[in-house]
Amino acid sequence: MPTIVKGGLVQAANVIAPSADTSRMGPADIRKELASVKEAMMQKHLAFVEQAAKEGVQVLCFQELFNGPYFCAEHHSRWYDFAEPVPGPTVERFAEVAKRHGMVIILPVYELAMTGVYYNTAAVVDADGKYLGMYRKNHIPYVHPGFYEKFYFKHGNLGYPVFDTAVGRIAVYICYDRHFPEGARILALRGAWIIFNPSATIAGVSRYLWELEQPAHAVANGVYVGAINRVGTEPPWNWGPFYGSSYFCNPRGKIIARGSEDRDELVTADLNLDMIKEVRDAWQFFRDRRPDTYDDLTRQLP
Amino acid sequence: MPTIVKGGLVQAANVIAPSADTSRMGPADIRKELASVKEAMMQKHLAFVEQAAKEGVQVLCFQELFNGPYFCAEHHSRWYDFAEPVPGPTVERFAEVAKRHGMVIILPVYELAMTGVYYNTAAVVDADGKYLGMYRKNHIPYVHPGFYEKFYFKHGNLGYPVFDTAVGRIAVYICYDRHFPEGARILALRGAWIIFNPSATIAGVSRYLWELEQPAHAVANGVYVGAINRVGTEPPWNWGPFYGSSYFCNPRGKIIARGSEDRDELVTADLNLDMIKEVRDAWQFFRDRRPDTYDDLTRQLP
Repeated sequence: MPTIVKGGLVQAANVIAPSADTSRMGPADIRKELASVKEAMMQKHLAFVEQAAKEGVQVLCFQELFNGPYFCAEHHSRWYDFAEPVPGPTVERFAEVAKRHGMVIILPVYELAMTGVYYNTAAVVDADGKYLGMYRKNHIPYVHPGFYEKFYFKHGNLGYPVFDTAVGRIAVYICYDRHFPEGARILALRGAWIIFNPSATIAGVSRYLWELEQPAHAVANGVYVGAINRVGTEPPWNWGPFYGSSYFCNPRGKIIARGSEDRDELVTADLNLDMIKEVRDAWQFFRDRRPDTYDDLTRQLP
Repeated sequence: MPTIVKGGLVQAANVIAPSADTSRMGPADIRKELASVKEAMMQKHLAFVEQAAKEGVQVLCFQELFNGPYFCAEHHSRWYDFAEPVPGPTVERFAEVAKRHGMVIILPVYELAMTGVYYNTAAVVDADGKYLGMYRKNHIPYVHPGFYEKFYFKHGNLGYPVFDTAVGRIAVYICYDRHFPEGARILALRGAWIIFNPSATIAGVSRYLWELEQPAHAVANGVYVGAINRVGTEPPWNWGPFYGSSYFCNPRGKIIARGSEDRDELVTADLNLDMIKEVRDAWQFFRDRRPDTYDDLTRQLP
């Protein structure tokens, strides 16, 4: 395993806006439009992979629902057709470039699990192009206005998987998950050294929390965190602006690389994995946890 | 219940230094010296209660092991004699002033539970002087040099109690406990609105974490946090400096009052308890937790 891993995060604005009014469009027209919306984002991200390869990135993570807009800003059943199997077309396409560049890639997409069952999912592809598995977002928000996720996503049923990749053991925790210290802890207990958090979040209360909660997870668990947020204001809902500011945070809770608030960007950092042992040995939080006292965490209280 | 509660935190340097060398002292001399050490700190804190009463404080918390130095800087069995029953002399004395001033007081002391069994404990006294119960620190550090707590304290066996007081439901989480998000979550699930964290911590790595971890707990749980750290460098070990900086943090994770780094001080703040509902209703983290997925937290993993 390498001691220093070059990590990359991509923040990217949506390219083609879907129609505001679909009342005069037939189902085929709607699907055709959505295919264009998706393909434009696929192209943008394929280009980012090339850039990341040039910069020597070994593990790359895209934003939440990366290959389209953050459609949870509206209630519209057209988006159910945006979902795709995992593995499926998007995973297969990026698996090829992952293999070509020897790069681990994390692909957060809208997953079709079976007809009528959809998840907010991230697929993990290893540096040899092999699909390793997926994480399904466990904590689903429903904030009005603009985050109508319970309309689109069943909550995850795969627990908190970790993935052994060419850059070591990694994990994914998606957007709203980050507000819940429980899952970050479980991922660390299962041996994850880098936790990626692909997100879509806008200014307001969360801006301040963006650099508070996940550095706290990094410290509590002695892990690296890679946090990604999209950029731009998305038509036709003009929802946003998403404030970017994607970052890597080290196990001391310090942010070591940060993206802009408003531009498409590849954010990279050298992640020194030796720091994980150094920090854990200094503090010994894992020695001193008291799992025998935590039963209430697993009860539906109150 | 009041909507706005005036909270107080006391950070205070130890007064009388214990002898560096006890090799020529008899057991009675040692005990006599330690009685003086304790009495000096009792006097200092009794004065702080008077000051707090004048300022209208309704709930007051002292620092960890408040009535002496942070003796875990050395290994010496003399400190076992510093422990006292809870309730016991210290609680009884402060219960009187609590009643006189109608003030809830939290008293972190070294507890003698039975001969040879000692805890790092905090007693809670209600505004009518009634002893309500105690919390025993669950997470015990052992950091070299200077934090030899496993030598002095058995880890807590009372779980995560909450206390219904004249100012609402409150809880205590002691010093090193703050590095563990689990307990803070349980206290919130049990209905605590204010969590006090009496501490003793020195510069270095923890200084940066001091204003990261507990604001993160406040946000994750929608609670107020009152964090207390002692001040000064303590002879004969010259251990420290303890950097003070006691603070109150609101449920948005913002620090609303902060003490100095180096002076004895009463830190006060008006805690608007309505903000707890406001923040929880906006985020709905408690609605969206997934206790059915958290089993790993209660296992001894790995």
